[in-house]
Amino acid sequence: MSEVRMKAGLAGQAAAAMAGLTTEEKNQALLAAADALLARSDEILRANEEDLERGRANGTSDSLLDRLKLTSERIGGIAEGLRQIVELPDPVGDVLETMDRPNGLHIVKRRVPLGVIGIIYEARPNVTVDAAGLCLKTGNAVVLRGGSSALSSNRAIVKVIHEALAETALPVEAIQLIEDPDRSSVDEMLKLNGLLDVVIPRGGSSLIQNVVQNATVPVIETGAGICHTYLDETARPEMAAAIALNAKVQRPSVCNAMETLLVHEAYAKAHLSRLASQFKEAGVELRGCEQTRELIPWASPATDEDFATEYNDYILNVKIVHELNEALAHIARFGTKHSECIVTENEEHAARFQQEIDAAAVYHNASTRFTDGFEFGFGAEIGISTQKLHARGPMGLPALTSSKYIIYGSGQIRS
Amino acid sequence: MSEVRMKAGLAGQAAAAMAGLTTEEKNQALLAAADALLARSDEILRANEEDLERGRANGTSDSLLDRLKLTSERIGGIAEGLRQIVELPDPVGDVLETMDRPNGLHIVKRRVPLGVIGIIYEARPNVTVDAAGLCLKTGNAVVLRGGSSALSSNRAIVKVIHEALAETALPVEAIQLIEDPDRSSVDEMLKLNGLLDVVIPRGGSSLIQNVVQNATVPVIETGAGICHTYLDETARPEMAAAIALNAKVQRPSVCNAMETLLVHEAYAKAHLSRLASQFKEAGVELRGCEQTRELIPWASPATDEDFATEYNDYILNVKIVHELNEALAHIARFGTKHSECIVTENEEHAARFQQEIDAAAVYHNASTRFTDGFEFGFGAEIGISTQKLHARGPMGLPALTSSKYIIYGSGQIRS
Repeated sequence: MSEVRMKAGLAGQAAAAMAGLTTEEKNQALLAAADALLARSDEILRANEEDLERGRANGTSDSLLDRLKLTSERIGGIAEGLRQIVELPDPVGDVLETMDRPNGLHIVKRRVPLGVIGIIYEARPNVTVDAAGLCLKTGNAVVLRGGSSALSSNRAIVKVIHEALAETALPVEAIQLIEDPDRSSVDEMLKLNGLLDVVIPRGGSSLIQNVVQNATVPVIETGAGICHTYLDETARPEMAAAIALNAKVQRPSVCNAMETLLVHEAYAKAHLSRLASQFKEAGVELRGCEQTRELIPWASPATDEDFATEYNDYILNVKIVHELNEALAHIARFGTKHSECIVTENEEHAARFQQEIDAAAVYHNASTRFTDGFEFGFGAEIGISTQKLHARGPMGLPALTSSKYIIYGSGQIRS
Repeated sequence: MSEVRMKAGLAGQAAAAMAGLTTEEKNQALLAAADALLARSDEILRANEEDLERGRANGTSDSLLDRLKLTSERIGGIAEGLRQIVELPDPVGDVLETMDRPNGLHIVKRRVPLGVIGIIYEARPNVTVDAAGLCLKTGNAVVLRGGSSALSSNRAIVKVIHEALAETALPVEAIQLIEDPDRSSVDEMLKLNGLLDVVIPRGGSSLIQNVVQNATVPVIETGAGICHTYLDETARPEMAAAIALNAKVQRPSVCNAMETLLVHEAYAKAHLSRLASQFKEAGVELRGCEQTRELIPWASPATDEDFATEYNDYILNVKIVHELNEALAHIARFGTKHSECIVTENEEHAARFQQEIDAAAVYHNASTRFTDGFEFGFGAEIGISTQKLHARGPMGLPALTSSKYIIYGSGQIRS
């Protein structure tokens, strides 16, 4: 039996036990894991150094090495993340609906864990702990498949958590780490119908597309964001500039950052030159439509390919539109249904934009950067769903649950 | 451009308009469609006769011909189904959650249509109307791909509905029928990421497995049910017999019918012979474990393959267990997480069974046949989900919706 199949099977057995644990038992285990990560951080840092050395020897880029790198401070932050999960309400057991039928059947719809969750991710070892913590809190078992570049770190982290869990009510088998670095172990996870209840990919678009294209198990697609900000005719210039700059430059590498700025013609004539200078000062390269380039000659031309690109970088497309409908049409064509924003003082335009745009989060007069589990007040986030099934937008703990109908009868039969 | 891609594209354009319709507009369209189906039933029956003739010429089985066959009465029932959908509350626009953040952001989570729903089904032309009605009521566009054996009927039905919709606020393009009878049109639908928001298969297990195995678009898996009824030591014999018989013979062909009866040893010794005779009288073939066959010599032996088979027929496996745990373990091994039942007077056993069994619906002292949207009071049903994501168990109108976060700001930016 392959490693993947064996470990998913063990996780499945653990999942049955996990579903019956109390919130208190789960919280104690999370705290034990947090304590162990701190107490044994030297061990984890040594393993992390192995990964870093291997990475440097392989010519890994500095930015990837930075994502891979752990420090005492980062481990402190990771442990603190577990403590924060402890503070969050446990959704498992919540009554979602009750129904009393004319025939006397009493039906209760309760939240239950999903079962076994597969997480496929890349170089960041903190995901190992975050994902395990969120899954454990919601009574799920988890099969982790991190990037091979972080394998030593992930092994050390899981070893520490396993040994901490052994002293608690949680079954150690609830956390499984796939150690096979070959891509085939990912492919195998994607076809484990009946053993994995869902797979959640976390990482870049090629990782996510591989999962979406090849999985036969249910998937929650996360990530891709070509987000737009539309500055309407009546936008207040100071607010509009602050929102547009924030959406682009506060953290360009993330999915809720803006990739294209749409500007109403009248607003553009009055304010775009100044705004363009602000972007330039912030180090942002502009690519503009023809009309934009008349106002900002130093911008390079924006092609349809540019409008369809998630840069995750200091590059911004700018397009001038003649009315709201043109902005709506552009977003319908190029958007990825993640986060979209209108800046306007016209309430009717705001309402139409928020009604007609098909996206997980639609903003009026606020930066798209707020699409985030913490900013929404969920306290934790397993990712941002860009699909419409099960969960859409930032996913907190309830997104890691399913439901079960429990039916109380007194001998009812169907006629 | 292929028929599938072209029609899915048209549906996508219609979906944008559908999302903004009022409940009143949608209801008027459903009523117009119901009236038209009745008024033009002769036309539909003539088309249906073409399908039936072709089926008879191809040697189609009587049971399949019966599923295919329409009558004035059946069309009346189908039209009545649309009127019932009119009576149901419209979930679109419901506020699911509101959040006020410390920074002043006001966040509203609203139900919205899924967008474009693909339905892949087999010979029953009534599904054409049911699925279209449920999708329209929830503001979705729908791409229907029925079985080629019902193509003439489906064409006639969709023509009638289209002509009725043309007189209403609904875009006619919201209902698309794929007419290409080739299996490749199904395969193409399964890969239409970005054009179809979800595919729902309705039909036999080979249809469903094809969809699950090959789709890259999100799928809601429906259908397969290997359902168990466990008669515990303290089950009341009259109630137990009534529930077991109902679960098996009231309609054996459906997914919530029982396939395996588990019986506590003590209960079996006292009551199984009599119950077996009742099954025999009802025309049910029994296949038993070794111990069962000591009590019921005329039962044939049940193999693991039998326990893993959804008969949908007058065949029942019987297995004697020594305690509750053995019943739980058998269901964990062979169940499909659809519907499971315990008959017992022992409340502790009932609670354990309902907690530990991982299934969409878990019954105490009632027949598994109640797992059904109408019986649960949803008023309509698009299918019964056997997966854990998005919807689990009977799916009413809310299962055809997603959500959208609408965020009201006053210039907030992220720091």
